[in-house]
Amino acid sequence: MKPPIKVAITGAGGQIGYSLVFRIAAGEMFGTDTPVELRLIDLERQVPIIDGVKMELDDCAFPLLKKVVTTTDLAEGFADANWVILVGSVPRKDGMERKDLLEINGKIFVGQGQAIEKNAAPDVRILVVGNPCNTNCLIAKASAPKIPANRWFAMTALDENRAKTQLAQKTSTDVDAVKNMIIWGNHSATQFPDYFHATINGKAATELIENDWLENSFVETVQKRGAAVIKARGASSAGSAANAIIDSVRRIITPTPEGESFSMAVPSDGSYGVPEGLIFSFPLKSKDESYEIVQGVEHDELAQTKIAATLQELQEEQAAVQGMLG
Amino acid sequence: MKPPIKVAITGAGGQIGYSLVFRIAAGEMFGTDTPVELRLIDLERQVPIIDGVKMELDDCAFPLLKKVVTTTDLAEGFADANWVILVGSVPRKDGMERKDLLEINGKIFVGQGQAIEKNAAPDVRILVVGNPCNTNCLIAKASAPKIPANRWFAMTALDENRAKTQLAQKTSTDVDAVKNMIIWGNHSATQFPDYFHATINGKAATELIENDWLENSFVETVQKRGAAVIKARGASSAGSAANAIIDSVRRIITPTPEGESFSMAVPSDGSYGVPEGLIFSFPLKSKDESYEIVQGVEHDELAQTKIAATLQELQEEQAAVQGMLG
Repeated sequence: MKPPIKVAITGAGGQIGYSLVFRIAAGEMFGTDTPVELRLIDLERQVPIIDGVKMELDDCAFPLLKKVVTTTDLAEGFADANWVILVGSVPRKDGMERKDLLEINGKIFVGQGQAIEKNAAPDVRILVVGNPCNTNCLIAKASAPKIPANRWFAMTALDENRAKTQLAQKTSTDVDAVKNMIIWGNHSATQFPDYFHATINGKAATELIENDWLENSFVETVQKRGAAVIKARGASSAGSAANAIIDSVRRIITPTPEGESFSMAVPSDGSYGVPEGLIFSFPLKSKDESYEIVQGVEHDELAQTKIAATLQELQEEQAAVQGMLG
Repeated sequence: MKPPIKVAITGAGGQIGYSLVFRIAAGEMFGTDTPVELRLIDLERQVPIIDGVKMELDDCAFPLLKKVVTTTDLAEGFADANWVILVGSVPRKDGMERKDLLEINGKIFVGQGQAIEKNAAPDVRILVVGNPCNTNCLIAKASAPKIPANRWFAMTALDENRAKTQLAQKTSTDVDAVKNMIIWGNHSATQFPDYFHATINGKAATELIENDWLENSFVETVQKRGAAVIKARGASSAGSAANAIIDSVRRIITPTPEGESFSMAVPSDGSYGVPEGLIFSFPLKSKDESYEIVQGVEHDELAQTKIAATLQELQEEQAAVQGMLG
């Protein structure tokens, strides 16, 4: 049997963590032939909860789960980790300015970036989920300069999945008929779900669906879906966020089918006029042990405007945390 | 592609349901080549929650998930269902006598049994999880006399999984080295986790572990594990219970490896002196479209005493709900 993949998860005592860890242990992330070790990391006050989650993981008798560590200590949690999933972050509270939110979270991600660089495995890859995830990723990456840029990811797979289902339901097709549903930019309300290049059973979505619905209803539904789920459930997306984490890792480590792409925020290499280093969601293709940003996607004026807006927001976030970028 | 398997789940808005539905939709219960339809059933006050869960299932873009129905109506929920997972039940509250608990839940399971018989698919199989699950299963089955006895199950897989891990950790072995960990009787504190027949890497557990630990610490830990998890997490087992549901269905529909068994409460055929019809946990082997109760397991005096105790409890439960058994 292969050696275990060590997966460290921050905020593991939260709802996303609870929806995630059982699925990783069952083999959904790395396959049913790959053993795993889990590091459940959370704050001191969450320790009884992560200890309880560990008990429940034990109670599943998962054949692939070789070890579970619960800890508040980043060095212990990240030690030799092959994958680090940064889920924990401070949520925005009433009266909190966006700048405050960026600063509070920024400090957390400085420490986490440093601890990852110091302790994780040489092949570590990092997926940032805790919001604002693009800028949290930017900060953590800046705090870990020895880790190559192509190891850093911030999650837009949930947006991509949400957008796919909206298109599938609108056209009464199966969701796996929807391909190339690119999310551009920031994982926030400024993101641009690019319906211009999405296909449904090989046909352009724009040929099958009226433009007014795509331009307005579709884009807004995807951008505001998180709030709609909170309104219905009385709690934020957890099961679907955990699922998107699994999808993200699988999409990164699995060869992308010919002619397809998936969306993920990664450090820009200058593609599409996005300044180098900014964590921006692009269409990606998995390639060997890494990925490439799909080139040559053309944008009309409307798309350019939307991409410029989300880029501007990310640059403002970057400016707000400049002091933490080393 | 195969036709979808229709899975109906009661109490779907609860924590076990939330831990379960994403894993079923991902293909963990029936395999990644089998599409599924989900029926999320719950009480009126839970409707916003199950509607929110449906939104999140949509947001996962699961290729195998062909349809999700949310409903309070049993006829709609059970219509043509191939599998019914009865998770919902009324938990015991302070000051409630065991008899009251049996009666309150009994009424629910009478209605559910009738609705299953009237609406479900001809091949329906039913797994009862809501407690007291053995007696709830007894009542539902009695209310659906046209459904063959071998379609009814009450869950002891969580106890079995818990027991396996206790033996694995005690002997520092992998949990999949532990086999034939039989749970006898009631899914309650009187259950008997039969360490006499468990093997670890082919050797008897009783040869590898001192008797005092097995007879006392082990049995008590397994029997009281649910309470220990509540104490740690501040919430009852959900992820591990959902996992045991997945294991249960998979163990029933997958050929059991030669020389092995799994534990599940089923209507007794008189085996081991258990009166016919009582829902009692036995060692089972999956066989063709059904199962057989493994015969010839021998019990010493201590085991006989423990099995008699759990049998007596089940008979008392049966007596308490006699009026609902038709």
